[in-house]
Amino acid sequence: MPPPEPAVSAVRSAVRRLLGSAEAAPFRGAPLAVACSGGADSLALAAAASHAARREGVAVHGLVVDHGLQAGSAGVAARAADQLRELGCSARVIAVEVGRGGGLEAAARRARYAALRAERPPGSLVLLGHTLDDQAETVLLGLGRGSGARSIAGMRPLDPPWARPFLGVRRATTEAACAALGLVPWQDPHNSDARFTRVRLRTEVLPLLEEVLQGGVREALARTARQLREDADALDELAAEVRERVESGGALDALALREVPGSLRRRVLRAWLLARGVPEITDEHLRAADALVADWRGQGGPALPGDFVLRRAHGTLQVEAAGRKPPDG
Amino acid sequence: MPPPEPAVSAVRSAVRRLLGSAEAAPFRGAPLAVACSGGADSLALAAAASHAARREGVAVHGLVVDHGLQAGSAGVAARAADQLRELGCSARVIAVEVGRGGGLEAAARRARYAALRAERPPGSLVLLGHTLDDQAETVLLGLGRGSGARSIAGMRPLDPPWARPFLGVRRATTEAACAALGLVPWQDPHNSDARFTRVRLRTEVLPLLEEVLQGGVREALARTARQLREDADALDELAAEVRERVESGGALDALALREVPGSLRRRVLRAWLLARGVPEITDEHLRAADALVADWRGQGGPALPGDFVLRRAHGTLQVEAAGRKPPDG
Repeated sequence: MPPPEPAVSAVRSAVRRLLGSAEAAPFRGAPLAVACSGGADSLALAAAASHAARREGVAVHGLVVDHGLQAGSAGVAARAADQLRELGCSARVIAVEVGRGGGLEAAARRARYAALRAERPPGSLVLLGHTLDDQAETVLLGLGRGSGARSIAGMRPLDPPWARPFLGVRRATTEAACAALGLVPWQDPHNSDARFTRVRLRTEVLPLLEEVLQGGVREALARTARQLREDADALDELAAEVRERVESGGALDALALREVPGSLRRRVLRAWLLARGVPEITDEHLRAADALVADWRGQGGPALPGDFVLRRAHGTLQVEAAGRKPPDG
Repeated sequence: MPPPEPAVSAVRSAVRRLLGSAEAAPFRGAPLAVACSGGADSLALAAAASHAARREGVAVHGLVVDHGLQAGSAGVAARAADQLRELGCSARVIAVEVGRGGGLEAAARRARYAALRAERPPGSLVLLGHTLDDQAETVLLGLGRGSGARSIAGMRPLDPPWARPFLGVRRATTEAACAALGLVPWQDPHNSDARFTRVRLRTEVLPLLEEVLQGGVREALARTARQLREDADALDELAAEVRERVESGGALDALALREVPGSLRRRVLRAWLLARGVPEITDEHLRAADALVADWRGQGGPALPGDFVLRRAHGTLQVEAAGRKPPDG
């Protein structure tokens, strides 16, 4: 047998590496699920998963979500299911109803994840075909939100039941792998529809950034996402320890909290406020809350979303209902 | 006296806020220096600084750096110095020689900062006119490098002797303030020269990103920079504590280091390797070094830049010279 094409080796070893990692150990021996749209990324993923699974002697279940958003979507799904079966996977089409809340992309995503979660074989990982290109687009989208490290930390390679072996693989590599394996991927017209923000990031912003910054931008964004994710994980872990120490009876010890670096302090405050039922906390709210801890001069506490107010008394922070609003206020 | 225009109020209160912050307290009562190119940002800064200094009874020294890179630069510098004097500052032109190492922008920046540092009045802060727009461009530039939080953490508002009161002020506000104060700023042709990466980020990438992500991108980038800077500060502080604990006689205790979250571990390794004289450590080097700590299976240590090699023996990490290179290797 001739050696496989480089692109085929690349997608296979990406799947092998993730499945062989220490973090994936609890899933070893379990069947695999692969989410497949019929596009190049998920078709290459199914092929690589099928190859890895044969060696391990486990079954691969292909899950094709039919969002019902485009004419002929049932036919596209049926064809993807056929391709999965030719690759040696079982295959099932799941038709979902996509709501309209929060934009079409977000609604389709929610429906898709819910269906995959419900339909995966028990105990299995669900492999998703997100590539390094998708990761770079996700980071740019998050940058536009500007809510700190978490919003630009991108997707995780392993976040059970989800597994994303291709976060280090370029989209062009999955296309080359499909070509080498004789797989003809479906071209989703949504992937070139400029009404979608993500499509414009992919087709306009990233090519321009690559040109202006002289290349390597997608890789740099993916690398940055990984490092920020690790930083955020470390800080979240430390913040949970601090919160354990300074919270008591639903109140926070402001004097003890003051001794902690600002970025930890605000993480503790955010987690505590969320747990007290305060919704939608912005950076501005957090900094106003933090001023009661780090810059205390007897000032009144800030109003918070959900009709709450933060108060400091006797060195202790508490969340209270703001009380009745003034009439016609 | 009528109240000042909103833009004038904005630039004045930005300067007042920074000078009045707890972090700037050690410089209270000292004279101020203002770096001024004659452009809108630094002219508005000089005006606001002069206003603040009059209230405080301190002197403002205007420093105009003439990079000698454009025909007529001496005339531009002399005009800026005149404007500074009209604003009630003293003014001095400093001619510098710009080298060519690492690109023109970087070389000019190095020469400028060195001159300002050398010529500032002893004990003074040097105010710099960087705006929120500059901060957003800096973050995008750093993203292209992809070396983690530090590279996208942007500029600090206070990093003595440097002070940047305008990091939360839009460039358009400094232009409006100049117009309201009757100050005619110099338009640097370099600011629209598309040979400079920063100019293309400003004139092409950021406007496109603003359009695609529907506004607020520059503010989001500046907000992100601030949060990442705070995260990085907290992690650096914690990493220094860990290093203190695990380093002894120039070697690291790998077993103790293993107990620490990955992002802290790699910060400790980076600081230690730099202190051992290893130059130019990439993320890849760091992760290879980290594998000797977190994923130890008796493997050999990685080669490091500067002809060093990392070794693990008896639970301890050491940096060694790699030895003679093979001939013609």
